[in-house]
Amino acid sequence: MKTTLGSKNGLYPMPLTLVGTMIDGDPNYSAIAHVGIMDVSTISISISKRYYTTAGIKKSHTFSVNIPSTSQVKEAEYCGLVSGKRTDKSQLFKNFYGKLKTAPMIQECPINMECQLAQTLEFPHHNVFIGEIVETYCEERYLTNHTIDFSKVDPILFIMEDTGYWRLGEQFEKAWHVKSDRPV
Amino acid sequence: MKTTLGSKNGLYPMPLTLVGTMIDGDPNYSAIAHVGIMDVSTISISISKRYYTTAGIKKSHTFSVNIPSTSQVKEAEYCGLVSGKRTDKSQLFKNFYGKLKTAPMIQECPINMECQLAQTLEFPHHNVFIGEIVETYCEERYLTNHTIDFSKVDPILFIMEDTGYWRLGEQFEKAWHVKSDRPV
Repeated sequence: MKTTLGSKNGLYPMPLTLVGTMIDGDPNYSAIAHVGIMDVSTISISISKRYYTTAGIKKSHTFSVNIPSTSQVKEAEYCGLVSGKRTDKSQLFKNFYGKLKTAPMIQECPINMECQLAQTLEFPHHNVFIGEIVETYCEERYLTNHTIDFSKVDPILFIMEDTGYWRLGEQFEKAWHVKSDRPV
Repeated sequence: MKTTLGSKNGLYPMPLTLVGTMIDGDPNYSAIAHVGIMDVSTISISISKRYYTTAGIKKSHTFSVNIPSTSQVKEAEYCGLVSGKRTDKSQLFKNFYGKLKTAPMIQECPINMECQLAQTLEFPHHNVFIGEIVETYCEERYLTNHTIDFSKVDPILFIMEDTGYWRLGEQFEKAWHVKSDRPV
């Protein structure tokens, strides 16, 4: 029997990311799991209006989306719990820069996406920043046959319902394999 | 050493959903994994402009987002591979309706979110439909302590890089536990 839960978001898990911005000349990173895919090379991040990161993106119109591994959960947590308003997070990681110059990225994260702000959506408590990916960086050791191997990346998956960090399990099927025969 | 991959989307895995719409009086379902979280009760789905589903959402301004289990991968695949333009998908599942009346939902899916269209973003090949969740339905057997238990839901996770369907692994940590001590 179905039960009603009110207006409850059940769209989980989502990959936990570390969003990088430049604020007053220093890199700052915030942990963000309310993200999304818009178009082939366009992604969205939802950031509380209270977050320090908001000012950085509004000023530079650029940001980075870094994908940490489960082994980096402590550093990721720290970025989510401690505000850049009060604490300098610029030395937490080895920072590097790409084409945009104002989107600091984390050397230690397996995947880094450098984004140009394309659009901002305003919600009551959050700004959703929509970014066009201009370049993606990945260490060779996370690739298999020149593509990103997520079993090697070992991303952190977030579920709000239990405020838990979860691992990626195994691949059990390939998409677009069923062809046109009716399966049920 | 970091290698550049061009403008490559590395924001995976994403939960595979079945998006329900009403078209010409019949329920239709499409498999969509390019989704996102905007605000507490607002989610986004990215749909190819070619998809039959687009017409349904544009007309009714409502849709549903259904979360299938890994055991439903064949049905989910079928919804993604076969267009409602040519094939009637209205009898694939037991359909049910909620408050909005025009957002068909799938009885067999563990989680169903009934959405009112709030905004539409246009991209070159996709429309991103942003929906306010008006009600969420879940079977009792997928709940633990009145909240959704994703280890019971067993969602299908999609990764574009290998076009693979993946399982959710285990919870390895709780969020917001590190407190304010510097972890690195």
